[in-house]
Amino acid sequence: MASRIRVRAYSSSANLGPGFDAIAVAHTAFYDEVELTVESGSGNVIVESVYGPYASDAGGAETARQAVLEALHLLGYTLDDHDIVLRVYKGIPPGRGLGSSGASAAAAVKALAEALELQADETILLEAAGRGEAAAAGAPHYDNAAASLLGGFTVVARDLEGRVYARSLSLEAHFVIYVPRTRHTAGKTRLMRQILPKTVSLEAASRNWSRLALLVAALALGDRELVGVMMGQDEIVEAARRKYIPCFSEAKRTALDAGALGVAISGAGPSLIALVDSEKNGVNVAKSLMEDCTCCEPDLVKVAKTAPGAERV
Amino acid sequence: MASRIRVRAYSSSANLGPGFDAIAVAHTAFYDEVELTVESGSGNVIVESVYGPYASDAGGAETARQAVLEALHLLGYTLDDHDIVLRVYKGIPPGRGLGSSGASAAAAVKALAEALELQADETILLEAAGRGEAAAAGAPHYDNAAASLLGGFTVVARDLEGRVYARSLSLEAHFVIYVPRTRHTAGKTRLMRQILPKTVSLEAASRNWSRLALLVAALALGDRELVGVMMGQDEIVEAARRKYIPCFSEAKRTALDAGALGVAISGAGPSLIALVDSEKNGVNVAKSLMEDCTCCEPDLVKVAKTAPGAERV
Repeated sequence: MASRIRVRAYSSSANLGPGFDAIAVAHTAFYDEVELTVESGSGNVIVESVYGPYASDAGGAETARQAVLEALHLLGYTLDDHDIVLRVYKGIPPGRGLGSSGASAAAAVKALAEALELQADETILLEAAGRGEAAAAGAPHYDNAAASLLGGFTVVARDLEGRVYARSLSLEAHFVIYVPRTRHTAGKTRLMRQILPKTVSLEAASRNWSRLALLVAALALGDRELVGVMMGQDEIVEAARRKYIPCFSEAKRTALDAGALGVAISGAGPSLIALVDSEKNGVNVAKSLMEDCTCCEPDLVKVAKTAPGAERV
Repeated sequence: MASRIRVRAYSSSANLGPGFDAIAVAHTAFYDEVELTVESGSGNVIVESVYGPYASDAGGAETARQAVLEALHLLGYTLDDHDIVLRVYKGIPPGRGLGSSGASAAAAVKALAEALELQADETILLEAAGRGEAAAAGAPHYDNAAASLLGGFTVVARDLEGRVYARSLSLEAHFVIYVPRTRHTAGKTRLMRQILPKTVSLEAASRNWSRLALLVAALALGDRELVGVMMGQDEIVEAARRKYIPCFSEAKRTALDAGALGVAISGAGPSLIALVDSEKNGVNVAKSLMEDCTCCEPDLVKVAKTAPGAERV
């Protein structure tokens, strides 16, 4: 049993336009880290400290703790006379649609698997991370946790019996992550779900899923241009949400004019993700967003690339 | 200008479970061929003959003719003092959900492009094939035509402005195509669309598109087992159609019990497509379907593999 493990998990952007609750990409814009030690004790999982720029987000630490508890439960592992002690570095801004809690959960379960030297099926780790996130953050959707855990562009689905499946496509790509200056509201994700239509026409749904399917095919073929085009083709979820995103239209227009291949709301927003064809182009797009986008002040603008899955550092 | 061109295009199965109007696979179970000659004349497109086992299906010949007319129109090509003369071999049974008219259209536009030595964008050929099929067969959905034209597993989508995009993933796979003995009814495709729900819940829609996205990711990763699992996960389109497919449940059960990786309705049915892990397994599955499936007599059971796109023979 390794005694001290430190794992990094990156931020992620879910949905990518037509892929609501289905796809997310892990990116290097931000990351969380979880340091896990196994100490003598009485079978508890304890958060010793939370630090880093977003340490005030208590949800991240609780998500990490819940994810570890879920993993222990799913693996049937009892701690007996040991404690698991967590130190959580929160580097991902919470409440901005960047998969902050999913990353904490992914780092925590990966650290646990490494510490206990478990040959755990990734599906079990994902299930634990997702349940941990749901228990702590009330968001039982596994897209962000899956991307942070597996890396790359990760597709996640459940079968008719509820079993979760995830697969990652590892296309190297560059992004600009644009985080507008908005207050972090605790119920943001819930609100952004409440405003979605409850039903959609089969025609709109099938148009949407054909676009998502083509986006995934384009990822597999390395066709970044087509990925970008398809990121802009949602007419259901983003159509309902964009009016709640400050200056969505202007920022999207600015990024596309500066050469972005495609722009979408990152998760439930308010952040936006732009796909760009190179780091250099990313710098240009970021510069344009900071200088030319007049309707709202950006809080953070990052040039990033596709991130690996949760891994030891 | 080449004077005599013969092109073969294969049968296809659309939908594959959750991929309604989004994906189709071309397979070697059946094929059509179009022979095209350019002769002196007065600017007409003429079907000289229709032959082969399904020659009585006049729709196939008319689809080929309409597809050529659409392609000439889209390419801005005028025949002047030439005619285009078509001889159409109909080897794909019509009205069985096997992309019969799409294959005729795909073969025709490919033959035209070869005959006129056009460096035509595949998108233009697809648009022409799709429009030709729509004009002749009343089915403005391009999934079958796209698979027959491009080969492999083909994803097709339109953007918000209506532009069509298609990409092919070339996974080698084996299938069993099971064609129940049902009368060919002219309005079958229309009926099978009428019985679909007009609206679906966003939750069901997003479950469906996450499964389709995972199916495409699995295709890209060569994970046939997961492709098979996802083929069985539709809860919208197949759920509405299966009661119209004679012995769907028994045939599916029989195929899965004999080792098929997944089973779905082929297009609008009544045919079924089973994904199998080898030709040998395909032979076993076909044998089981013919011997053990008692609720309806299989008319044609074929072991097939992924087919290439429309090509000269």
